[in-house]
Amino acid sequence: MDFDITQGIAVLERTPGTLHAMLHDLGVAWIDATEGPETWSPHVIVGHLLHGERANWIPRARFILSQSTSRRLPPYDRFAHLHESQGKSLSVLLDEFGRLRAENLATLAAWGLTDTELALAGEHPEFGTVTLRQLLATWVVHDLGHIAQTVRVMAKQYRDAIGPWRAYLPIVDR
Amino acid sequence: MDFDITQGIAVLERTPGTLHAMLHDLGVAWIDATEGPETWSPHVIVGHLLHGERANWIPRARFILSQSTSRRLPPYDRFAHLHESQGKSLSVLLDEFGRLRAENLATLAAWGLTDTELALAGEHPEFGTVTLRQLLATWVVHDLGHIAQTVRVMAKQYRDAIGPWRAYLPIVDR
Repeated sequence: MDFDITQGIAVLERTPGTLHAMLHDLGVAWIDATEGPETWSPHVIVGHLLHGERANWIPRARFILSQSTSRRLPPYDRFAHLHESQGKSLSVLLDEFGRLRAENLATLAAWGLTDTELALAGEHPEFGTVTLRQLLATWVVHDLGHIAQTVRVMAKQYRDAIGPWRAYLPIVDR
Repeated sequence: MDFDITQGIAVLERTPGTLHAMLHDLGVAWIDATEGPETWSPHVIVGHLLHGERANWIPRARFILSQSTSRRLPPYDRFAHLHESQGKSLSVLLDEFGRLRAENLATLAAWGLTDTELALAGEHPEFGTVTLRQLLATWVVHDLGHIAQTVRVMAKQYRDAIGPWRAYLPIVDR
């Protein structure tokens, strides 16, 4: 389906509540679990989403809207959160994520983007031309992808515990 | 990790709230979306989870605990919900799921299962011997798998809308 700003915001505004319902006050056996060395735990994933609220989506959208002479999008470090969220409890990260997401969606709504503005483009360092519409659709899918990753990490902890049902539950082998 | 009943319940009790946060009052473009013919929408997935509360997990656990002479687990129709939830709004299904899940977890807690009971076995029609511990671990992973499915179905609706970012977001091609 085509990206629609109202439908997109409807998903984006639900992500903090979804992660809160899923993870808040859950034990460390779940929230610090990973899929192996150099992979992310639910705790780290929330830190990554929080970092995106500060450094990725709205700053990049603002950059495209500004149509500066250099159309090259500012670089974005996808691993910066690994430092930034260190030492912060999941509860703190969830709260900060909820607050920043709400602020960012208020900013987005206040822009009242037109179709013409959604069609504005910037230069992605790797992909070349990308539109504001594509960036905002990507924000939605990025949320959904990390929710899927969070539950996959948790599910894998029971890969052996489920015995023969593993044949019916591909999530533990993904 | 080994199945632990307290840790398992911690995940199971969060699923209704997670799905409510994710889907309640979301538009039909998302909740009725599918991955193609014969695949499930978020609405249908919630109906399936609701049906499992009635017909699958606790009835099968009770059957194993009873150690009846026929140890063969009663058959379970994984597609029964396709009829049962027809004509019910997602809001109704989410409420029923939350209520039944809470009742079922109260039943499970009241049993106060010992390690000896968790090691009791039944005969699965396809897999042969399965233990109560494996059944309960499977309940947890089954929840997580369907949460992952729900967000994957939604993410795929924007497969084209994200343009070149598709290369970074494998969820839309899973």
